[in-house]
Amino acid sequence: MNNAPKIAVLLSGCGVYDGSEIHEAVSLLLALDERGFEYQCFAPNTWQARTMDHFTGEATAVAGDADNRNVLAESARIARGDIKDLKEFDAREFDGLILPGGFGAALNLSDFAVKGPACDVNVEVERALKDAYKEGIIIGAMCIAPVVLARVLGASHIKLTIGNDKDMALGIQKMGAIHQNCAADEVCVDDEHRIVSVPAYMLAKSIKEVARGAQNLIDAVVDLLV
Amino acid sequence: MNNAPKIAVLLSGCGVYDGSEIHEAVSLLLALDERGFEYQCFAPNTWQARTMDHFTGEATAVAGDADNRNVLAESARIARGDIKDLKEFDAREFDGLILPGGFGAALNLSDFAVKGPACDVNVEVERALKDAYKEGIIIGAMCIAPVVLARVLGASHIKLTIGNDKDMALGIQKMGAIHQNCAADEVCVDDEHRIVSVPAYMLAKSIKEVARGAQNLIDAVVDLLV
Repeated sequence: MNNAPKIAVLLSGCGVYDGSEIHEAVSLLLALDERGFEYQCFAPNTWQARTMDHFTGEATAVAGDADNRNVLAESARIARGDIKDLKEFDAREFDGLILPGGFGAALNLSDFAVKGPACDVNVEVERALKDAYKEGIIIGAMCIAPVVLARVLGASHIKLTIGNDKDMALGIQKMGAIHQNCAADEVCVDDEHRIVSVPAYMLAKSIKEVARGAQNLIDAVVDLLV
Repeated sequence: MNNAPKIAVLLSGCGVYDGSEIHEAVSLLLALDERGFEYQCFAPNTWQARTMDHFTGEATAVAGDADNRNVLAESARIARGDIKDLKEFDAREFDGLILPGGFGAALNLSDFAVKGPACDVNVEVERALKDAYKEGIIIGAMCIAPVVLARVLGASHIKLTIGNDKDMALGIQKMGAIHQNCAADEVCVDDEHRIVSVPAYMLAKSIKEVARGAQNLIDAVVDLLV
């Protein structure tokens, strides 16, 4: 495994309603491991926009509350503690940077869920994506996470999918990117800009479709690396 | 899928150091979905023994602290909100009951991590396991979770694995159960008592071995259901 391709996985918390969608994140790590990739998880050391009780569906804390949660500390749950502050991300050390979905992408990595196409992006997330793009490493995103790519790199007219939702596709296009409709496990490949995306739980009806989407995403990464 | 077998998955929180091990839990849900099973997640509505910062490895709260976390609410993250209080578990509605690992099994479902073979078991967990055993449905466990089965059902001399750790095996045997050494993805099958177990992260070096173990576990369940 000395020459195994190495992928940075950018997490946004731990749980679909306030962080990374767990099935997507784990399916991604599994697909990477199964295809012989190495991976390193990262997350920004910042506070969540909100913390949700995933049983009741109620918000239990918002930004500024003492019992709100930290994105890096929560993301570490998915990574079993093996995670780095996104400040340490150096694009030259990786072959790719991939973002799983979950509301964390649209609440913590960006505030797309609140502001839509006029959203702000966390400063370290923006830096990481710009560095990755400049270095020409592959960038990938699942589910809702392509909106973050669209906001940071939309001016380059990158091609993305967030499934087939018309309003969401319009949002992607307002940020300068090109939207392509895809099925749950179908990968949108932008060969020119080396960007791959898959709808996952934007459309998936169960976890096996998410896992298949993650496998297809990594197969697309393999093709781009050849 | 009208006659799909239905499995209850008993979670213990969300994160290896204070709840369910996330890779194991997700690999289990994925293996069930891939083999055409239906599943329903459950967790006891109780407080965690402790809450750990998975980035620093420090405890941030213990039982009684206002900022400690609830097992059901945290488990709901893995289940995407689709989870029931373990009080609602009726063994007659299921073909099996399976527990993923993580310290939650030895801290929240039982206190094996503190008291060893003399541990106490959460009252609802004990009821669920006894009901499942009495109804003759299959019982499964991953990683450290077999200790809970050993404590509740050890008097029946059930056969289990927690990998190949001598002290842990001795603990299992002190509770009346029989221990069988297994590799990371190798399943210990007790045909007589309809109990299956797999070491998972007790021995696994990476997530793909955990996923293979979960697949093998469910294949063993399929064999027992024939």
